[in-house]
Amino acid sequence: MKFNCSFSTKLRVRYGETDQMGYCYYGNYAQYFEVGRVETLRNCGMSYKTLEDQGIMLPVSEYSAKYIAPAFYDDELTIKTTITEISGARIYFYYEIVNSNNKLISTAQTILVFVNKTDMRPIQAPDSFIQLLDKYKTQ
Amino acid sequence: MKFNCSFSTKLRVRYGETDQMGYCYYGNYAQYFEVGRVETLRNCGMSYKTLEDQGIMLPVSEYSAKYIAPAFYDDELTIKTTITEISGARIYFYYEIVNSNNKLISTAQTILVFVNKTDMRPIQAPDSFIQLLDKYKTQ
Amino acid sequence: MKFNCSFSTKLRVRYGETDQMGYCYYGNYAQYFEVGRVETLRNCGMSYKTLEDQGIMLPVSEYSAKYIAPAFYDDELTIKTTITEISGARIYFYYEIVNSNNKLISTAQTILVFVNKTDMRPIQAPDSFIQLLDKYKTQ
Amino acid sequence: MKFNCSFSTKLRVRYGETDQMGYCYYGNYAQYFEVGRVETLRNCGMSYKTLEDQGIMLPVSEYSAKYIAPAFYDDELTIKTTITEISGARIYFYYEIVNSNNKLISTAQTILVFVNKTDMRPIQAPDSFIQLLDKYKTQ
Repeated sequence: MKFNCSFSTKLRVRYGETDQMGYCYYGNYAQYFEVGRVETLRNCGMSYKTLEDQGIMLPVSEYSAKYIAPAFYDDELTIKTTITEISGARIYFYYEIVNSNNKLISTAQTILVFVNKTDMRPIQAPDSFIQLLDKYKTQ
Repeated sequence: MKFNCSFSTKLRVRYGETDQMGYCYYGNYAQYFEVGRVETLRNCGMSYKTLEDQGIMLPVSEYSAKYIAPAFYDDELTIKTTITEISGARIYFYYEIVNSNNKLISTAQTILVFVNKTDMRPIQAPDSFIQLLDKYKTQ
Repeated sequence: MKFNCSFSTKLRVRYGETDQMGYCYYGNYAQYFEVGRVETLRNCGMSYKTLEDQGIMLPVSEYSAKYIAPAFYDDELTIKTTITEISGARIYFYYEIVNSNNKLISTAQTILVFVNKTDMRPIQAPDSFIQLLDKYKTQ
Repeated sequence: MKFNCSFSTKLRVRYGETDQMGYCYYGNYAQYFEVGRVETLRNCGMSYKTLEDQGIMLPVSEYSAKYIAPAFYDDELTIKTTITEISGARIYFYYEIVNSNNKLISTAQTILVFVNKTDMRPIQAPDSFIQLLDKYKTQ
């Protein structure tokens, strides 16, 4: 199933997230995308914390990012996250980060897998979750 | 009980651990001290991983650090860790970090608490653990 | 000079900030306190970024923290930061973190040092900065 | 130019690098790959630190990772890094991480760009660097 469910969230680059190049370290974007997807899920009515409490986890299976322009200390970044697809146990997110000048600085994609907490095996995306996304379905 | 059980371990400052000041970020030392204490325990014959598998955890209760001189990217640091005391559920560690010029760059102390994994309540330090440290007892 | 200049800021514990104990890792609090002091300075009319652009840096010289109760994933934490003292080149901050149940989970103190960016040597706290804090002076 | 210049380096998963899922957090692999490439460069006779001292930086432009199996606390991981290509200002690295059971847990690729430190603009890979890799050239 394809979706177009987007949500934007803001955060500031912390001092400890910069490196001696004066840029936000490339490894720290993974946390920003995680914040983006958690807030997108929350906006859909789904708390990731609740999902885990119900025995379902969502480890990341694939991650790719492009670093188009640097992010600097104290920059206020906007992370636009889009749920694009759910297929079996897999959920696809697409991300764009813009800075406060509305300049695109990064794009990324992740694939996460619904797994059963007890045995960490893949499971179908829960129906209750898919229903929350129903109004965002594109095909 | 007081002890004098020391062990030194080395690590290099990673690029992502620097900040735009060009220093190793002050928040990253906590991981270095953790590496220091884990390797000190391992050297005593105690794997922290095994301790957790046995249902005991060691959360940090107090932490203080002095930053005497900066650590820089790619510096090879030596962390000398000393178990100084065990008292009831509490274990005290003292740390010194020197750089490759043998310059003292940081000292720190932590107090950790033995807790039961099931209810996270404090418990006495396990006897088997204290026996491992017997030869380092000073009083 | 003693001050009582406080400001509260909120943040959420990120997934990547937890550890396998299920707690927010003790080393990550240093970033939270950094967010607290940066926002406190901003609230006083002083951007730390601007300070650095003017050639002044504020490395941390001493840091101590007590971990009173754990912080968990997705907890919304309130960091109350207080500038308590400026003495020569040194500025003292005190911090308290409460969770959304208003339970105190951590207290901390840091000492930072005003240094000249060109040679990294301590300098007196800038007059312009002290003036911003004038109304919070207690003695 | 294509190369086949590989080097393996080992590291242990730190406690602070795990998350509450009990896995090494997906965002922390970026640091592991950075350690892998820095040690690979060092093994070729090129210190990344020296490169920066000479006014050249290597920001990451693209990064993609597959998480095939989890890494756990205290696992000793081997990161095999291969320089596969240099083309103009761009250098391509490929990575494989295996755990102590020799199980493949992650593969990744990064593209980094040689830039001039003064203006952060792309520059050709330095000849001195390409010469160091000459014996690894495959075409």
